[in-house]
Amino acid sequence: MKQRAVSAEGNVDPDRLWARHMELATVGGLANGGVDRQALTPEEAHARKMVIAWAQVIDLAPAIDPVGNLFLRYEGRRPNARPVLAGSHLDTQPCGGRFDGVYGVLAVLEAMTALRGAGWEPERPMDLVVWTNEEGCRFAPTTMGSSAFAGALSVDEVLAIRDETGVSVAEALDIVAEILGPMPSRSLGFPVHSFLEIHIEQGPVLEAHGCPVGVVTGVQGLRWFSIDVCGQSGHAGTTPERHRRDALVTALRILDVLREHMLGGTDHQDVRFTVGRFEVFPGAPNTIPGRVRFTIDLRHPDVDRLDELGAIILDTCERFAEPCAVSVEAPPASPSIRFAESMVGLLDNAARAECIQPVHLMSGATHDAKWLSTVAPTGMLFVPCGGGISHNEAETAELDDLVAGTRVMCRALRELSAA
Amino acid sequence: MKQRAVSAEGNVDPDRLWARHMELATVGGLANGGVDRQALTPEEAHARKMVIAWAQVIDLAPAIDPVGNLFLRYEGRRPNARPVLAGSHLDTQPCGGRFDGVYGVLAVLEAMTALRGAGWEPERPMDLVVWTNEEGCRFAPTTMGSSAFAGALSVDEVLAIRDETGVSVAEALDIVAEILGPMPSRSLGFPVHSFLEIHIEQGPVLEAHGCPVGVVTGVQGLRWFSIDVCGQSGHAGTTPERHRRDALVTALRILDVLREHMLGGTDHQDVRFTVGRFEVFPGAPNTIPGRVRFTIDLRHPDVDRLDELGAIILDTCERFAEPCAVSVEAPPASPSIRFAESMVGLLDNAARAECIQPVHLMSGATHDAKWLSTVAPTGMLFVPCGGGISHNEAETAELDDLVAGTRVMCRALRELSAA
Repeated sequence: MKQRAVSAEGNVDPDRLWARHMELATVGGLANGGVDRQALTPEEAHARKMVIAWAQVIDLAPAIDPVGNLFLRYEGRRPNARPVLAGSHLDTQPCGGRFDGVYGVLAVLEAMTALRGAGWEPERPMDLVVWTNEEGCRFAPTTMGSSAFAGALSVDEVLAIRDETGVSVAEALDIVAEILGPMPSRSLGFPVHSFLEIHIEQGPVLEAHGCPVGVVTGVQGLRWFSIDVCGQSGHAGTTPERHRRDALVTALRILDVLREHMLGGTDHQDVRFTVGRFEVFPGAPNTIPGRVRFTIDLRHPDVDRLDELGAIILDTCERFAEPCAVSVEAPPASPSIRFAESMVGLLDNAARAECIQPVHLMSGATHDAKWLSTVAPTGMLFVPCGGGISHNEAETAELDDLVAGTRVMCRALRELSAA
Repeated sequence: MKQRAVSAEGNVDPDRLWARHMELATVGGLANGGVDRQALTPEEAHARKMVIAWAQVIDLAPAIDPVGNLFLRYEGRRPNARPVLAGSHLDTQPCGGRFDGVYGVLAVLEAMTALRGAGWEPERPMDLVVWTNEEGCRFAPTTMGSSAFAGALSVDEVLAIRDETGVSVAEALDIVAEILGPMPSRSLGFPVHSFLEIHIEQGPVLEAHGCPVGVVTGVQGLRWFSIDVCGQSGHAGTTPERHRRDALVTALRILDVLREHMLGGTDHQDVRFTVGRFEVFPGAPNTIPGRVRFTIDLRHPDVDRLDELGAIILDTCERFAEPCAVSVEAPPASPSIRFAESMVGLLDNAARAECIQPVHLMSGATHDAKWLSTVAPTGMLFVPCGGGISHNEAETAELDDLVAGTRVMCRALRELSAA
C-alpha cells in the first residue's frame, strides 16, 4: 500500500517547542537559569510526567522498561513491526543547562506532533524514548539506561548501583514509579528497527560554520581513570618540605607531566583531557594532605591513539608516585564508534531537503546513540549551542536552530517509519 | 613566710600519665588508633568531663568562661593573687592523634597531682586550663578560645562563628554545657600572672638531637590565604583546550609557580608552604571544573620574609589568573613572636635541674601560648614525637619523654606559684 505524501515539517510549532523547553527548565530550576535535575530524582520524575502528558495529547501510549527507560508509542499500521526509536534524556548535570538531553526529547515530541497533525500513518511504530541516567552524575556509569537496553549491563547490575548517599537505582525507581503512577511495562532491549537522536552539539564547530544542523558520523572514544594518591598527613607548620609526603604535591606533579604529554603532541587539538573530580583529604588548611583522589576523562577520535595516551597515564602515575603510593583504576575503554553510512546518508538528505548543507562531524561527548548503534542502524543530528558551552547553567541555543533540527528530525522519522 | 621545699616531681606517675592518654583516645577514637574529636562536639565535651573528674580527685575546682575555656583551680594561700595558668587543648584534627593538645592538659594535671601529693601549698593559685578550639577545623580561626581570652576576639564575635553545617559556637556551647552540667563561671580574660604550655613538638628537631625536652623561644609567623579561581564549567568531551577556562588548570599553574618561588630560595628550609584545603566544583568526572577554592598556609620564622612571600602569593595569583578570574582573601598575618626571656630562663633551669640540656627552638605550629604571651609572661616546652609526625592518626610519643616533660613542668609550676 502506498503512503500518502504529507508535508508534516510545516506543522513544527516554534513557540510550542520553546515554551516546553522553558516549562521543563522550571523542574529542578536553579536561580541563575540553569537546571539541577539528576537521574531518577523526584524532579526528573516530574519532568517525565510533563512529557507524558504532552505526548498523550497526540495519543502516544506510555510504557516503561525494568531500568526505567520510558517509551511513548506512535502506533503504525503494522503494530508488530520493529519500531523506529527516537529520543534522548531528561536528566541533567548538578549545574546543568536547559537544552542538553531535553532538546532531544522535545524535538522528537514536536516532530511526532507535527506528523500527527498532518495525519501521518506510519507503517512501523515509532517510540519517543527517554533514556534513564544519561549523565551518570548521581549513578555511575553514564548512558546507563541505553547501555542496559543494548545488553552491556544486566538489569540486576543496574538495580544494584548506588548513589553517594547509598540509595540504589532500584529504590530510586520505586520513587519514580510512585510519582508516575501505574504504566504498562516493556521488556528490556526489545528488537528495534533504527534509532535517531538529536542533541545540542556541546562544542563550537557548528557555530563556527554558521550551520544550523550537523550530521554526526560517530562518537569519539572515551576512557575514565580514577587515581588515588596516598601520602601522609602532617602538621603544616612544623614538617619541613623534605620530610613531607604531601599527596597534593604528588598529584600536581603527575598532572603537570600528563598535561605536557597530552597537549604537547601534534594531535593536541584532538585530545580531550579533563580532570573533573579532584578531592583532597583531610581538607584542613593547616594539615598536609594525606590523600588525593581524582578522575581523568580522556577522549580521542582515534582508538589506537586513545590506547597510547591511556598507557601514558598508567606509566606516569607509576613513575611519579614517589614519595607517595599511587593506584589507578581504569575501567574498560569505551571505543570510538562510527554510525551506519545509510543513516548518515538519510540524515544528510533530510537536511538538504530543508536547504541545509549539513556539516558532518564526530561527537566529542558520549550519547545514548552510541549504545543503540550496537543493536540497530543509528543516526544522530546536532544543532549549535551558544559558545559551545554546555554542562553549565549558561547553556543556550537559538530557537531557529532548534526548529531547523526538529524539521530535519521530522523528515527522517517519516522516511524511516514509512517502510 | 618561707615555703617548705618539696620534691614533687618524684611523684609523677608514668603509668597513670600513659593510661589517661589512652583512655582519652577512646573518646572520638578512630579504628586505626587516631582520634576525631573536633572542638565543642559531644566527644570533646566527654573528654573534658573525664579531665574534670580526674582533677576533682585532687580537689581542683572547675569553672568555665563565656567562650568555653575551662579552668581547674589549685587554690593558693593568696586566693586573690593573679593565678599561674598552664594547659593546652582537648580538641583534635578530623584525623588527629592521641597526643597533640591532650599531652599539654594531662602533663599539667599530672604535675599538679604530684604537687598535691607532696603537700605543696602555693602562694598564688594555679589553673589547669583547657582552651576552646585550638585546631580551628570545625570553627575558624584556630586558637579561638585563647585569642578571645587575650582580647583579640570579642565574645559576641566568637559566639556567632558557624561551622560548615551552620551550627554556631553559641549553639555548640549549649550542648557542651548540658553534657558537663552546671559549673561556676569565670569572666573572659581575667588577670593572669603567667602561662605555661607543654606540647609535642610536631616536628623532627628534638628527635634528631635525642633531646627529651626542648624550650620554645617563640612561634614563627603564619599567614593564611583563601584563593578562589572562577573559570567556566563545560563538557569534557566536546570543548577543545583553547576554548576552555578550566579553573583547575589555572589553580595548578598558580601552585606550580608558587612552589618554585617558595621552595627555590636559599631559605627553602625555613619556608612552610601548605595547600591543605582544595575544593573543585562542580566535581563531575565529565565536566570541566568551573571553580576551585583552596587555602595556603604559609609560615616563616622571619617576619619580613613572611611579608615578602605573602606579596609573591598575591602577585602570582594576579599574573597567572588568565583565562580565569582569581580572587585572594588574606586575613591579617599572625606575626612571629618571642617568649619572655625570663620564662625561657626559668624553663631552661627547670630542665637542667632534671639533668636535661634542653634544645632551644622556635615553634613551627601556632599554639595557645602565642596569644597568652600578649597578656602575661609565657613559657613553652616541647617533647619529641615520633618522626615529627602529627595531625595524623599515626602520631606517637615516648613515655620517657612525656614523663621528663611533666617533671620539668612540675618544677616550673612550683617555681612560678611560690611567689
